[in-house]
Amino acid sequence: MTSSRCAACKQLRRRCPSNCIFLPYFPPNNPQRFSYVHKVYGASNVGKMLQQVQEHQRADVADSLYLEAYCRIKDPVYGCVGIVTLLHEEIYHVQCQLAKVQAQIDLLKAQAQVQGELQQQVV
Amino acid sequence: MTSSRCAACKQLRRRCPSNCIFLPYFPPNNPQRFSYVHKVYGASNVGKMLQQVQEHQRADVADSLYLEAYCRIKDPVYGCVGIVTLLHEEIYHVQCQLAKVQAQIDLLKAQAQVQGELQQQVV
Repeated sequence: MTSSRCAACKQLRRRCPSNCIFLPYFPPNNPQRFSYVHKVYGASNVGKMLQQVQEHQRADVADSLYLEAYCRIKDPVYGCVGIVTLLHEEIYHVQCQLAKVQAQIDLLKAQAQVQGELQQQVV
Repeated sequence: MTSSRCAACKQLRRRCPSNCIFLPYFPPNNPQRFSYVHKVYGASNVGKMLQQVQEHQRADVADSLYLEAYCRIKDPVYGCVGIVTLLHEEIYHVQCQLAKVQAQIDLLKAQAQVQGELQQQVV
């Protein structure tokens, strides 16, 4: 049984049953993935969060928990919320750029109209 | 002591010492704030995450943990990562809009140039 234990059971030094909740999402070849979520949430909370959703949703739960735990370890103050803040700032920046170029379009349209009118007067 | 216990010590049914790590960030008038982080991370992990940063950073740690826990409870599959994905999509959408209006500007500029040249030929 030892060789097929998942990363969670290996780290928690216990037997890995065939129906282990961690087994499909925390393979033994990626021990850091489990150690991150273990450090931030605790194994028991991760198990509970996997249990409380349907089976087809569990891979996404494991992935998102891992990402959040990874962010928290890299940025212990803001975690994933730091990324949300950065993305909000980026959206604000792109929206400002958009407003600027839209104003440029309005100006060019007005200029084109004036030029067209002048041209008609000349003809 | 009972009346001044923080939300964490109240919920954990224990004495709240004056140097309680939770006291400044989990006031008794907002029990849900603590119950969210307690459910997702566990009180002990929250305490550890507060302890491991400097005192002036702890309010931000508590806020970001609360926000992530809130997102996880509202969206048990994607949590805060769901928001990151949405924001990435929003940035992609605004960037597409930006590329479109920039192309419009190029077109209008080219049109203005042609009109200007025509006008000069007529004069």
